[in-house]
Parts: sequence; C-alpha cells; structure tokens
Amino acid sequence: MRNTFHEDLDKISDQLVEMTRLAGSAMSRATMALLDADLHLAETVIAADEQIDALRRELDDRAIDLLARQQPVATDLRMVVTAMRMSSDLERMGDLARHVAKVARLRYPDSAIHPVMRSTVLEMGQVAERIVAKAGSVIAGKDIESARALERDDDEMDRLHRDIFNMLMDGKWKYGTEAAVDATLVSRYYERFADHAVSVARRVVYLVTGEWHTDAELDNEEI
Amino acid sequence: MRNTFHEDLDKISDQLVEMTRLAGSAMSRATMALLDADLHLAETVIAADEQIDALRRELDDRAIDLLARQQPVATDLRMVVTAMRMSSDLERMGDLARHVAKVARLRYPDSAIHPVMRSTVLEMGQVAERIVAKAGSVIAGKDIESARALERDDDEMDRLHRDIFNMLMDGKWKYGTEAAVDATLVSRYYERFADHAVSVARRVVYLVTGEWHTDAELDNEEI
Repeated sequence: MRNTFHEDLDKISDQLVEMTRLAGSAMSRATMALLDADLHLAETVIAADEQIDALRRELDDRAIDLLARQQPVATDLRMVVTAMRMSSDLERMGDLARHVAKVARLRYPDSAIHPVMRSTVLEMGQVAERIVAKAGSVIAGKDIESARALERDDDEMDRLHRDIFNMLMDGKWKYGTEAAVDATLVSRYYERFADHAVSVARRVVYLVTGEWHTDAELDNEEI
Repeated sequence: MRNTFHEDLDKISDQLVEMTRLAGSAMSRATMALLDADLHLAETVIAADEQIDALRRELDDRAIDLLARQQPVATDLRMVVTAMRMSSDLERMGDLARHVAKVARLRYPDSAIHPVMRSTVLEMGQVAERIVAKAGSVIAGKDIESARALERDDDEMDRLHRDIFNMLMDGKWKYGTEAAVDATLVSRYYERFADHAVSVARRVVYLVTGEWHTDAELDNEEI
C-alpha cells in the first residue's frame, strides 16, 4: 500500500511540474503576443489554457481518489492537501497568462503596450518565466534554496510593477487613458503571476520545514 | 464516529458562514471608506482582515484534522475538500475588501473615486454585499435557488464593471490618469469579489447535485 501511495504522489508531483511548464510557456508566449501585437500567438495562449485546467482537474481527482483509497495521515495527508493547493495556484497562473493574451487580442492590430513601457513589460515577462521555472525546480527537487532565490525574483517583479505605476502616476503620462488602463491591468497580471509562484514555493518549504513564511505580504497591489 | 464527523462538519459550515459575514462587512465598510475618504474606516478594514485569515487557518486545520481522524470517503470526503476550497475563496474576498480599503487610504484626504463614478461604485458595493450574503445563505441552507439568484447578481456586477471601463475608454475621460488607474483597480477588485462568491455557490451546488456549472466564464477581465 505504501508503494502505491508514493507512486501516486510522484505522479501528482510530475503533474504539478508539468503545470509549471505549461504556465511558463503560456506567459512567455503571452508576453510576445502583447509586445509584438501577434494575434495568432495570443489565440494559441487563450486556447491552450484549457490544457492547464484539464490537468488541474485530473490532478485534483487523483488526489481525492488517493485520500479515499489510501487514507493518509500526518505528513502524507499534508502533502496531498498541499498538492491540491498548488494545483489551484498553477491553474490561476495559467488564467493570468490568458488574461495578458486577451489584452493583446483586444488591441490588435495595435500593441496594448506603449513603446515607453516596452522594456519594462519585456522584463516582467522574463521574470515571470524565471520564477515559474524555479517553482518547477522547487516542486521537483524539494529545493529550499531555489525557493529562497525565487523570493528575490518576486521582489524584482514588485519593483517592475512599481516602475509601471510610477510612469502612469507621475503626472506626465500623455499617451491616453486606454493605454494607462491596459498597462494597469497587465502589470497587475504579471505581479499576481509571480505571487502565485511564490505561494507554490512557500508551500513546498512548509512541507519540508514546517515553517510558513508570512513575513512578506505577497499581494501588494495598493501601489 | 459518524456523529462526531457531522458535528465537526457543521462547525466548519458555521465558520464558512461566519467568513461570508466578515467578508461582507469588510467590503461594505471598504466601499464607504472609499467613497467618503474615511481614513479611520479604511484602517479598520485593513486591520480586520487578519481575523478572516485566522478563521481560514482554523477552518483548514479543523478540516485536515477531520480527514486524519475520521478518514471520510465518497460524499463526506468531497464535502471536507470543498469546504477548504470555499475557505480559500472567502479568504481571498477578504483580501479584495482590504485592497479597496488600501486604495481609499492611499488617496486620503481625497476620495480615490471621481464624482462621475460615485454612483456606479456605490452600486458595486451594494451588489458585493448582496452576493456575499447570498453565498452565506447557500452554504447554510444548501439552497440551490439562491445559488442561481446569485449568478444574476454576478451578471449585474459584470455590467457595472463594464460601465466603469466604458467611462474610462470612450475617449472623453478628462479626470487624469491617477483617477483612471484607481478606478481600473477598484473595479477589478469588486468584480473578482463577486466571482469568488459565485465560485463558493457553485461548489455548494456541485456538492448537492454533482453538476459543475462551467458554462459561464467567471473572470472576464479582458474588457
């Protein structure tokens, strides 16, 4: 029985890593679609989100089945429950990539991002890719050090998010309200994407160490 | 053993209803703080969020303890897992109320909401109160009809959200970028608050009927 349990748990862990890969690919393509006003690429991101949703449903069904059949307790139980929470974070990250792609689609054939913000948004996309890849490594390797490095990527994302708001709020924004609204939403989607990646990593750290890091407030949207 | 299980489950259900009450009170006060530029009220909402977070942790600990001690299967298991998902939605609703309060605090002594949007935002606050109260009734009474009525409140919230965006996007917005950015974020917080209430109600319907309503896409942020 123990072997079956751990085989199932390994399968769940593999699926979580696969979800990080899909969410990372989605956000990477969404960033390109946004900056290059690439309608076709945006459409592929929007369509592919169903794949992440399906994987999440499959994972959760497997987890519930595992709880029912194997009745784990203590650490084993905590691992299954935590896996379901991580699948929820990762599914949401897929949604956020889809949201970015939808902004790109809405403004086609223009780019939703004004040239003055292009390099900042490009960097947000790169940080998003980096942070979700690290989340995958943390899940696969139960790697506490990567989890800490990932928090620094999140700080970087918060800095970029503030940069966007500073550009909008310094009283000199002259590129119109529509561009400001798009930038506000897109910037928030990237920032939330990173928050969920941090949340995934913290859950792994919690499983390994029993310590939950609540020192840093994740969702600092009141900028 | 069965009685203990159902007593514990009743207690969890009571805590979920209490969370809807707290989230509703928070959003109601946040709306007043926002519209009246009431710093003190905003601070009380921000401080009170910890109460919702604590309730969520208590509820989740109780649920995990229940899984470990009672090892429920089938519908009983599904109810416990669903309760944990609802607590996550409700905790997030508390966060969103806190976000609205933080926007109010940031712009004090001004109101973040321009007078032209005041009535729309007031209505968003009223719909938010209504929808979370219905979510509480749905949890307490496993009431499928209220769950359906609640979907109509969500449609109303989406309509108000579109109204805000139409005001910003019609090319005639002349009240500055800062006010536009604030309105964008605040409107999204209300819309997401309603989405989570719908999600709570749908989870109850799923428990009762086994049917998951995915026909309507909840998070339609690409407006």
